Amino acid sequence: MNSRQVAILLWLVSATLSFSVFACDSKLRGTGDLGVVVEREQGNLLVVENSTDTVLCRVKGLGDLSHASAVFSRDARFAFIFGRDGGLTKVDLLTGKIVKRVIQGGNSIGGAVSQDGSLIAVSNYVPGGIKVFSSEDLSLVADIVAAYKGSPEGSKTVGLVDAPGNKFIFSLFEGGATWVADFSNGPQPEITKFKAIGKQPYDALISGDGRYYIAGLFGEDGLAMLDLWQQEKGVRRILPDYGRGHEILPVYKMPHLEGWAVAGDLIFLPAIGLHQVLVVDKSSWEQVGRIELKGQPVFAMVQPDSRQVWVNFAYPDNNWIQVIDVHSLKVVKTLDVGKGALHMEFAPRGEKVWISVRDEDRIKVYDTEDYSLLKTLDAHKPSGIFFTNRAAKIGL
Amino acid sequence: MNSRQVAILLWLVSATLSFSVFACDSKLRGTGDLGVVVEREQGNLLVVENSTDTVLCRVKGLGDLSHASAVFSRDARFAFIFGRDGGLTKVDLLTGKIVKRVIQGGNSIGGAVSQDGSLIAVSNYVPGGIKVFSSEDLSLVADIVAAYKGSPEGSKTVGLVDAPGNKFIFSLFEGGATWVADFSNGPQPEITKFKAIGKQPYDALISGDGRYYIAGLFGEDGLAMLDLWQQEKGVRRILPDYGRGHEILPVYKMPHLEGWAVAGDLIFLPAIGLHQVLVVDKSSWEQVGRIELKGQPVFAMVQPDSRQVWVNFAYPDNNWIQVIDVHSLKVVKTLDVGKGALHMEFAPRGEKVWISVRDEDRIKVYDTEDYSLLKTLDAHKPSGIFFTNRAAKIGL
Repeated sequence: MNSRQVAILLWLVSATLSFSVFACDSKLRGTGDLGVVVEREQGNLLVVENSTDTVLCRVKGLGDLSHASAVFSRDARFAFIFGRDGGLTKVDLLTGKIVKRVIQGGNSIGGAVSQDGSLIAVSNYVPGGIKVFSSEDLSLVADIVAAYKGSPEGSKTVGLVDAPGNKFIFSLFEGGATWVADFSNGPQPEITKFKAIGKQPYDALISGDGRYYIAGLFGEDGLAMLDLWQQEKGVRRILPDYGRGHEILPVYKMPHLEGWAVAGDLIFLPAIGLHQVLVVDKSSWEQVGRIELKGQPVFAMVQPDSRQVWVNFAYPDNNWIQVIDVHSLKVVKTLDVGKGALHMEFAPRGEKVWISVRDEDRIKVYDTEDYSLLKTLDAHKPSGIFFTNRAAKIGL
Repeated sequence: MNSRQVAILLWLVSATLSFSVFACDSKLRGTGDLGVVVEREQGNLLVVENSTDTVLCRVKGLGDLSHASAVFSRDARFAFIFGRDGGLTKVDLLTGKIVKRVIQGGNSIGGAVSQDGSLIAVSNYVPGGIKVFSSEDLSLVADIVAAYKGSPEGSKTVGLVDAPGNKFIFSLFEGGATWVADFSNGPQPEITKFKAIGKQPYDALISGDGRYYIAGLFGEDGLAMLDLWQQEKGVRRILPDYGRGHEILPVYKMPHLEGWAVAGDLIFLPAIGLHQVLVVDKSSWEQVGRIELKGQPVFAMVQPDSRQVWVNFAYPDNNWIQVIDVHSLKVVKTLDVGKGALHMEFAPRGEKVWISVRDEDRIKVYDTEDYSLLKTLDAHKPSGIFFTNRAAKIGL
């Protein structure tokens, strides 16, 4: 073999290595600026990068991704995708490959990753309860039946989040309870149960510091709040008028509580059935304002610097995005981004925001300071957008 | 060449590629759980990983690393190290190699990375002013002379931080001013100057949301605070009694303000010359408490969940670490970690803390919930510890 042949062989080997190892990206790279976009109808995922605002590759075969959500591994390399069909899929963002996929239930509704990154929990409608998996190989670690009085087979679970101390917190829809499962001593959790928190909790959020867990109630007005720094005080009712009031609205109108924005002392929450966002003071849990908007808000999301809250809306107003200034509590910008503006995700330090515009098959990237359109990316019916900096955040 | 020879050649090529590309780590990996530890006396850096609490490799040749600090690229792959000798070094955490090193000044005191990740700013004692570099290749983008009345050559600069809107904020030690340099419109910054903020600002911090910039004053008591949401109100004086009072203490006793802890509404700041941490309410800027401790505090650092504040101390009490419960404002734990406990860094979601113990040539990793010692790592005279999740944070 002459030197030219050796050179060609080296090139071939190197090209092959690049292809097999870096199918998604073709080079060694940091993972702090990666993310995923859910292409809901086709069951695909786009691996994206928010430094240059580009799509890196498409990962196929993730099943039913309606309402799919994602969490990330501690090292920001792997995404764990929770599908509606009970599928839990571990995806390698560097190679663009599915590492492992399990069907863990019949109908699931989101999940969480433990503080130490070792556990992935999934909340289930069918058969109900919570299943907990190793983040390493998705092997089953714990299966928690959400049994309640009169129903040993258990309840649907909702509002599953992680909390400091390797805890998972969730609520029982039929059971009307909030449970705290503490995994800090290994795979057998110590479970603390708060009963009779209210009728039919349907979703929940945890504040960014992991202190307050707040469940929304479908069966009655008001919210059920647990202060994790003072668990001995139990769950108490806040904002007694929050809810559907006398009108019974269909369930799909209930805004998801993960769409609430906590900005300093203030919480911004979508009013139910009204064209308003309510402003609540976190130190008193009293409502201190309401802001008139163009439609029924779905998500109210706060920028990483807490300066502005971005709101999207339910049909038929889902082409609008409105921006609220947290200091003045006024709407400072109204954007027509296109029909089906479903989700927003901020760059890690907030200089721009990605918005999925489903009906245009596009992601649009806006500057958060001057609201200019920075870039447009192709995506098939995009919904959820999730960036890897979530790996370092509590409750996301 | 027969098939055995080809196989050997392939193995050699593959081994060579592995060695040259992955000298630090030898495999494709996520960068969200990486970090660096400064080995101050030898001018070395350890590349570390906080999922398994291990040292990955040592990077040599970074010059004088006294008081060295680090920021990270947007993708969490590269560290930018600010040395005392004016050296600015870009290190690739995946390969463990120095990508680029420039001597940008004669004596520098820390730096910052812009919100969008494109710019690295360095604060200089000699010759003073601020230099701003491209994060890509460390080419000079801007050179800001901190001129003030009577001194066209300019002032030493201190308290340099990044802020939302691609801004850098810093203060002029001799000039008694705070400047806001806005790079949102390109490499020629728009500079807003706040004069006569107080005598000899010596350090500063910015709150985690990027709203409040607070400079400590060496030449007089009190602190100078700028509310970036209301710049038109200018700099105002807060905590008028904070400082050295009537006693003139040597400068090395002044605690660094980056060691302040903001936990919800409360700020914990080391009292100067006293065995106390002061507690200040951020909504009123009034002191609401003081906590007695075992020594003169240096750093008061809040856990990512804001539940506890960890404090280390000046000589001769630098073997102690005390932990304050934010809810009760009481000391809940006193640890003897060994002599020369210089720096602390929390795991991204706060389940453990790394502490550099200089005189024992060790890093010790503690559980933040039960305070147990989880692991001990060898390091030569370690000082600063910086994890890559800082890449996604404002002001760090």
